[in-house]
Amino acid sequence: LESSSWDGRYALVVAGDIAVYAAGNARPTGGCGAVAILLGPNAPLVFDRGVRATHMEHVYDFYKPDMSSEYPEVDGKLTIECYFRALDRCYVKYLEKMGRVQQTQSHDNLDVFDYLCFHSPYSKLVQKSVGRLLFLDFLRGHASGLMSPKLEALCGLRPEETYFDRNVEKTFLELSGPVFHQKTFPSLFLSKNLGNMYAATLFGCLASLLTRVPVDQLMGKRIGLFSFGSGSSASMFSLQVLGDISHITQRLNLVSRLTARRPVSAVRYDQIMALRESTHNAVDYKPQGDIKNLSPGTYYLDHIDSKRRRYHAYHP
Amino acid sequence: LESSSWDGRYALVVAGDIAVYAAGNARPTGGCGAVAILLGPNAPLVFDRGVRATHMEHVYDFYKPDMSSEYPEVDGKLTIECYFRALDRCYVKYLEKMGRVQQTQSHDNLDVFDYLCFHSPYSKLVQKSVGRLLFLDFLRGHASGLMSPKLEALCGLRPEETYFDRNVEKTFLELSGPVFHQKTFPSLFLSKNLGNMYAATLFGCLASLLTRVPVDQLMGKRIGLFSFGSGSSASMFSLQVLGDISHITQRLNLVSRLTARRPVSAVRYDQIMALRESTHNAVDYKPQGDIKNLSPGTYYLDHIDSKRRRYHAYHP
Repeated sequence: LESSSWDGRYALVVAGDIAVYAAGNARPTGGCGAVAILLGPNAPLVFDRGVRATHMEHVYDFYKPDMSSEYPEVDGKLTIECYFRALDRCYVKYLEKMGRVQQTQSHDNLDVFDYLCFHSPYSKLVQKSVGRLLFLDFLRGHASGLMSPKLEALCGLRPEETYFDRNVEKTFLELSGPVFHQKTFPSLFLSKNLGNMYAATLFGCLASLLTRVPVDQLMGKRIGLFSFGSGSSASMFSLQVLGDISHITQRLNLVSRLTARRPVSAVRYDQIMALRESTHNAVDYKPQGDIKNLSPGTYYLDHIDSKRRRYHAYHP
Repeated sequence: LESSSWDGRYALVVAGDIAVYAAGNARPTGGCGAVAILLGPNAPLVFDRGVRATHMEHVYDFYKPDMSSEYPEVDGKLTIECYFRALDRCYVKYLEKMGRVQQTQSHDNLDVFDYLCFHSPYSKLVQKSVGRLLFLDFLRGHASGLMSPKLEALCGLRPEETYFDRNVEKTFLELSGPVFHQKTFPSLFLSKNLGNMYAATLFGCLASLLTRVPVDQLMGKRIGLFSFGSGSSASMFSLQVLGDISHITQRLNLVSRLTARRPVSAVRYDQIMALRESTHNAVDYKPQGDIKNLSPGTYYLDHIDSKRRRYHAYHP
């Protein structure tokens, strides 16, 4: 929309992925979901310009190198380190840019955000992240009112030494509790119900926030967003609620759509995954399963032919 | 660079791909090459704004659905049809936009371009494409001077009926010969020497043109570019030479770099490809081959570990 090639049309962004794991500890964290975002002029949600902060690294924390499987190679501890390092770098850079754009430093700390959404592999990591941002404010001397002998001992730490520091984590989880519950907790509604959605997760959090906080309370507020993808690539950016969003939350209709889900047992889920495994990269294949289980208006994969061309059909 | 997030830095675009085919007729058309493009302000090559024309279709003409192989599924005839249809649509749209931007229709035909580069799977298709654009000018009544009883018989044709019309093709190949040799032939130097480079092909053509036409002759001229990728996605756009480009052509140094190539026999090439096939998706693998064959300053794949992580090394 900022390009000289823009001709006035709306843009549609669809974010989704395949968030499944091999049988084992990680499997229950997998989830399902996709988000569609309409971009255009005169929107009620307006991105702040000139403040987006990005951090990238080449790292093998989570990747899918085995072409015969859709399951990833995962190094969970390394992902947490990458996530926190990216969070640290993006946050400091975001505040620096915001200071330049606003030409004041009135909010050079967490107060810059009224609400704050994070990429959410699981909710606990998000809660720790809010604690971490308060810890960074504290290290920079910008967390007003935080002072105690116990805290003084943490003053000299460098952020990169503390990714797995249990004392720092526990201390700032507690201190940030009220901030987390006010600014971030409402954004975790979908994550808690759907698990990790990978590419859709962050904007699922935004959808949750818009739904779970009363619309009039959001008006004029700034929402921070921290986007993260393993490998790794992360950005912190923000938007402001400058118009009525009630038509958006009505269409999202999250609660009734979540209620319409049909539960299946873990045993049945494993059977479904086993079928997926055995038909991955299949040729001349027609997916099994009852079309009646699809929501009305769903496009679905009808069959794959001998040259692996995929044909889709529509469930009215 | 047009984004409000641009902070003044240069951008680097690298275009490359794996252009190899299974043993058979298509194999000799495969090629090798990559192009790096530096983008920034005050460049001697300046893109025209507001005229880029794009055409996209969902089509299985060329794709790589077999994860156990790096060879594509190819339907060559369908690709030609897609290429010509995209060319037709982009060209008409480009001229329409150029008319709007210039607010005149002074050049509502091929004369809008002083030079013209095409995505070049092989040179013959490019030569036919120049003929095709002249045919489109003729159908639109914008090809001045083209009139004969033989041509009158072609007046009522619709472009979409003529993708494989031998008479149209032959007629306009002949008529467009001088235009092809003046505006496009110099751009095919790398294609003719290197074969198809896929993503690098079009900008290889631009590099060829800048090298093969005397620098002072290019000054102030408009170069049209037609980009095409199977699947399919195509754009026509253009740039003007508005500054000295001699430092670019010197660094490209195409002729001496082409001369430094080492020929291998077709039999040896097949052996190399057989090795690639047998080690595709390999685990715990160290590539074979003599590092001495690499150009000085090359980064190369040293080994792949048990988790398929790739480690690179540098040949000084």
